[in-house]
Amino acid sequence: MNQKRCTNTTYARFLPLLGDIRQTDKAEFSQDLLAGTITAILLIPQALAYSLLAGLPPEVGLYASVLPPIIYAFTGTSRTLAVGPVAVAAVMVAAALVPYADGDPDKYMTGALILSALTGFIMLGMGFLRLGWLTNFISHPVLTGFTTGAAIFIVGTQLAALTGISVPRGVSFAVLLQALVDNIHTYNVATAIFGSIAVVLLILARQPLVVVLTNLGIKQQSAVILGRTAPLFVVIGAILIAELVDAHVRFDIAVVGLVPQGLPVPSLNFMKAQGWTELLPAAGMIAVIAYVESISVAKVLAFRRRQKIDPDQEFRALGLANVAAACAGTMPVAGGFSRSMVNFDAGARTQLAAIFTAILVGLAAFLFTNLLENLPKAVLSAIIVVAVWQLIDIQGLKHTWSYDKGDGIAQGVTLVGVLALGIEQGLMLGVGLALVLFLYRTSRPHIAVVGRVKGSEHYRNIYRHKVETWPQLLLVRIDENIYFANTPRVETELHNLVLDSTITDVVLIFSGVAYVDTSGLEMLETIEQELSSTGLRLHLAEVKGPVLDRLYGTKFYERLGEERVYLSTEKAVEKLIPSS
Amino acid sequence: MNQKRCTNTTYARFLPLLGDIRQTDKAEFSQDLLAGTITAILLIPQALAYSLLAGLPPEVGLYASVLPPIIYAFTGTSRTLAVGPVAVAAVMVAAALVPYADGDPDKYMTGALILSALTGFIMLGMGFLRLGWLTNFISHPVLTGFTTGAAIFIVGTQLAALTGISVPRGVSFAVLLQALVDNIHTYNVATAIFGSIAVVLLILARQPLVVVLTNLGIKQQSAVILGRTAPLFVVIGAILIAELVDAHVRFDIAVVGLVPQGLPVPSLNFMKAQGWTELLPAAGMIAVIAYVESISVAKVLAFRRRQKIDPDQEFRALGLANVAAACAGTMPVAGGFSRSMVNFDAGARTQLAAIFTAILVGLAAFLFTNLLENLPKAVLSAIIVVAVWQLIDIQGLKHTWSYDKGDGIAQGVTLVGVLALGIEQGLMLGVGLALVLFLYRTSRPHIAVVGRVKGSEHYRNIYRHKVETWPQLLLVRIDENIYFANTPRVETELHNLVLDSTITDVVLIFSGVAYVDTSGLEMLETIEQELSSTGLRLHLAEVKGPVLDRLYGTKFYERLGEERVYLSTEKAVEKLIPSS
Repeated sequence: MNQKRCTNTTYARFLPLLGDIRQTDKAEFSQDLLAGTITAILLIPQALAYSLLAGLPPEVGLYASVLPPIIYAFTGTSRTLAVGPVAVAAVMVAAALVPYADGDPDKYMTGALILSALTGFIMLGMGFLRLGWLTNFISHPVLTGFTTGAAIFIVGTQLAALTGISVPRGVSFAVLLQALVDNIHTYNVATAIFGSIAVVLLILARQPLVVVLTNLGIKQQSAVILGRTAPLFVVIGAILIAELVDAHVRFDIAVVGLVPQGLPVPSLNFMKAQGWTELLPAAGMIAVIAYVESISVAKVLAFRRRQKIDPDQEFRALGLANVAAACAGTMPVAGGFSRSMVNFDAGARTQLAAIFTAILVGLAAFLFTNLLENLPKAVLSAIIVVAVWQLIDIQGLKHTWSYDKGDGIAQGVTLVGVLALGIEQGLMLGVGLALVLFLYRTSRPHIAVVGRVKGSEHYRNIYRHKVETWPQLLLVRIDENIYFANTPRVETELHNLVLDSTITDVVLIFSGVAYVDTSGLEMLETIEQELSSTGLRLHLAEVKGPVLDRLYGTKFYERLGEERVYLSTEKAVEKLIPSS
Repeated sequence: MNQKRCTNTTYARFLPLLGDIRQTDKAEFSQDLLAGTITAILLIPQALAYSLLAGLPPEVGLYASVLPPIIYAFTGTSRTLAVGPVAVAAVMVAAALVPYADGDPDKYMTGALILSALTGFIMLGMGFLRLGWLTNFISHPVLTGFTTGAAIFIVGTQLAALTGISVPRGVSFAVLLQALVDNIHTYNVATAIFGSIAVVLLILARQPLVVVLTNLGIKQQSAVILGRTAPLFVVIGAILIAELVDAHVRFDIAVVGLVPQGLPVPSLNFMKAQGWTELLPAAGMIAVIAYVESISVAKVLAFRRRQKIDPDQEFRALGLANVAAACAGTMPVAGGFSRSMVNFDAGARTQLAAIFTAILVGLAAFLFTNLLENLPKAVLSAIIVVAVWQLIDIQGLKHTWSYDKGDGIAQGVTLVGVLALGIEQGLMLGVGLALVLFLYRTSRPHIAVVGRVKGSEHYRNIYRHKVETWPQLLLVRIDENIYFANTPRVETELHNLVLDSTITDVVLIFSGVAYVDTSGLEMLETIEQELSSTGLRLHLAEVKGPVLDRLYGTKFYERLGEERVYLSTEKAVEKLIPSS
């Protein structure tokens, strides 16, 4: 069944779910129902929390969990990705909307819809223009640095809500910390109690509860899944206690308040709103981050069951889901990492599970919103803090640094940039720096003079191995594509290597060269002319097929002639040192 | 003697000329004197012309040809580079100063000094911080596109001066063409006659005169050099005729006018001027282009005599020369291509030739400036047009396109960008585009499944060669560094390749991998874990030394163990397919 999804019929390409449903049997159906239910239990409190994180009313998170995942379910190529509101996108929404709305809640809400629509359109454009490769430019270290920075920032913002301290919204991390310190006297003991008990319970549910349940004989996987449903029970418990003690009135605890019942009728009114150009850069970044987050988890899960993901169709599916989010009156959505993991571990086989989740969240929106009135916001903050805490990866920074200083710098700068300059600025700084560092690296290619490992046909670096060499023959291996950023250096190094007057033949070994651009070709032509004008001959060995295909017909290849291009270094040496 | 320059004494490093002078004999001295004289004859009319091109008074070009080349002579590592005013930098100066000065000639002049100083400081900074590699990002195609575009633009601006048609300064190419057409009635017949005769004579001196002289028995090289001195004779002839017919008064021909005698006393007054920040971006681009132009010709000439160029010291030397230009009251300087060629071909051995040239130009500034009053500007325009005409390389665009579509696009876009958007904008567009195209290319690496060429130890692409393969063994050669821009694609391709259920062992051949970054390492770790979780084993072969050095100590290497890393693909096959 898994392979069938890759047939070329149009519906299989653009609506993969239909193919799955036709092949689903009863057992799989009930597995999807169970997984969908568990994911819904995890999702409902998260949805409320993440919309508060985005600075939006709590019900907006529920809206983001119904229509968008249903659209994704029909169009996405991942069978287990759980699409909905996610923490990092939520904080990016807040970062974009606070300056945009300038305190006007209506404008803020409209801005959120514009962001969803723009995010969707950008994703659709990237998908149809097959520009998915552009997202590759966010390297792992930059993404980790960004996520860690964003998570630290989120924890910072939630510290205020957890303790009742009042701080301004949408400020930089430094200002936020300053405000926390300055306004520390505004804390509210009751809020802090609710908040800290919730944090403790949620942490206990992560690991200790799992251990206890496993010791009680429950399978570890089931125990983990049960642990993940804890947020809902914490929320229910908090609502009961808050009502019991009349927390809002007696202790001045901030609560969620009245939440409108049901779901809004999908609407295209947002199309008429102003501010599209202003929000475009932020939407571009949300689109990229949302896509990268989604595709990473989708790939991991797909490979576990040896299924395939189509990166371009993923862009289109997430794009449609975000346009649907705008129509459904809600914020941008993405595939959440931990939620998708829970969905997968709970046994989801197809996107039917996501549809069950969406139906359950929709039902909750109709039936239970009136229960949320007395829910202390601090409890939602606790859910956010515990959820994003695991995104903070300081250990990873050390690992990256020890493996690659350049990547470590990029990761650290991104992290610090997110905190010091802001979410989007930090991301852009990191991406730019990673590119410059990469180009710096390839601009200094590794060039090795090689010799023959005695008694073999292997050629190795003369400085690393004991090898045979011949005074009249220079064997040079270039370990990098020859392209504009490194041609000057390759040229200089070759110039320096041929200064030795005993040399009559130079063999360039191209085993590490997958590509020679026009600048590289011109450099090779120049070198060949310079060498032959001083009586030296240039040869090539181990040229890869694609490189050779391009060299045919060039002046350079004509000057060399077929006889100076060898399949292997050994063949070149046999020819040039007949006695060898 | 050539090798001595590379000794490590400080004076040899920062003042290489002194070492040369100590070793110069009489014969070399007289060769330098001859070459310096010929170069001066070429330079004087060019210097006058290029300062007009930059929108500056003609004497400024002479100033640029005295102190700056002397400073370079002492500090530069090229023995034959002729430093002074150049056409492309001149037109960049005009592009920067027209909007800056806004019609005020004093501000325009001060701006030129600031540009020289900034160019110098930027170059010094790049030299001392060893940032020369940054200039590598200007690829050959972009540079050719830029030079061609700039040359076409220059020819366009000179068409007006050649014919006496009045056009606005500092406008885009389209506006310029429009103005030429609109104001065509303002042409001046006498000016056009002077201009066109000068153009014809200069063209004749380039090739036909050389042929005639060669036929008369003069050595071709000497004939070429004699041809290059033509501009001075054209200038002298034009002055004589213009005085004879009283061209300025009777035919309203624009002439050079009064030129102050002598050289200005070096001054640091420019330091107090305003507008440094505003001119910084333009200076950055002039610095990069001036450096790239200088270093290219310096390298070509140095290699012809097997000498070395130190790219970082070149940055410092050109930087000092430009700071000197600011002190000497003139515009930015660079090593000119054709002028350096003439200097070299005329037999220059050391920078003493450049010092002789500078002395002669200085003498001319004291003795002959009064003769220039009646020189028609159209003749200087003719010199510019004929000099830059050879920079126009449309044929090269075709060549580039046929070798590499991406480079062809970058070259064409740069050319069109320079004409449509402006000199600096076109350059930036081209550099950015070339980078994106390069990254696009490396983001889609060539990955080949290989097999053994029967009876050999060579492994080649199964689709290009007839090779042995084994169903349980997948041999994959990755022909690119594994880094963030291509890890997603490498991962996807590997996923797809291992879907075949007969495979038990996967060997990744790293002969084309010179570098694995953190993203790549994480991808490899993931792949290894995924494979081993499904019972497959991952192996590496032909890992280069620098890559292996980094992999030691990583979790990935620990999981693989030494026994799964093979020196050659053959060794891996021997182990995994014992019967082979």
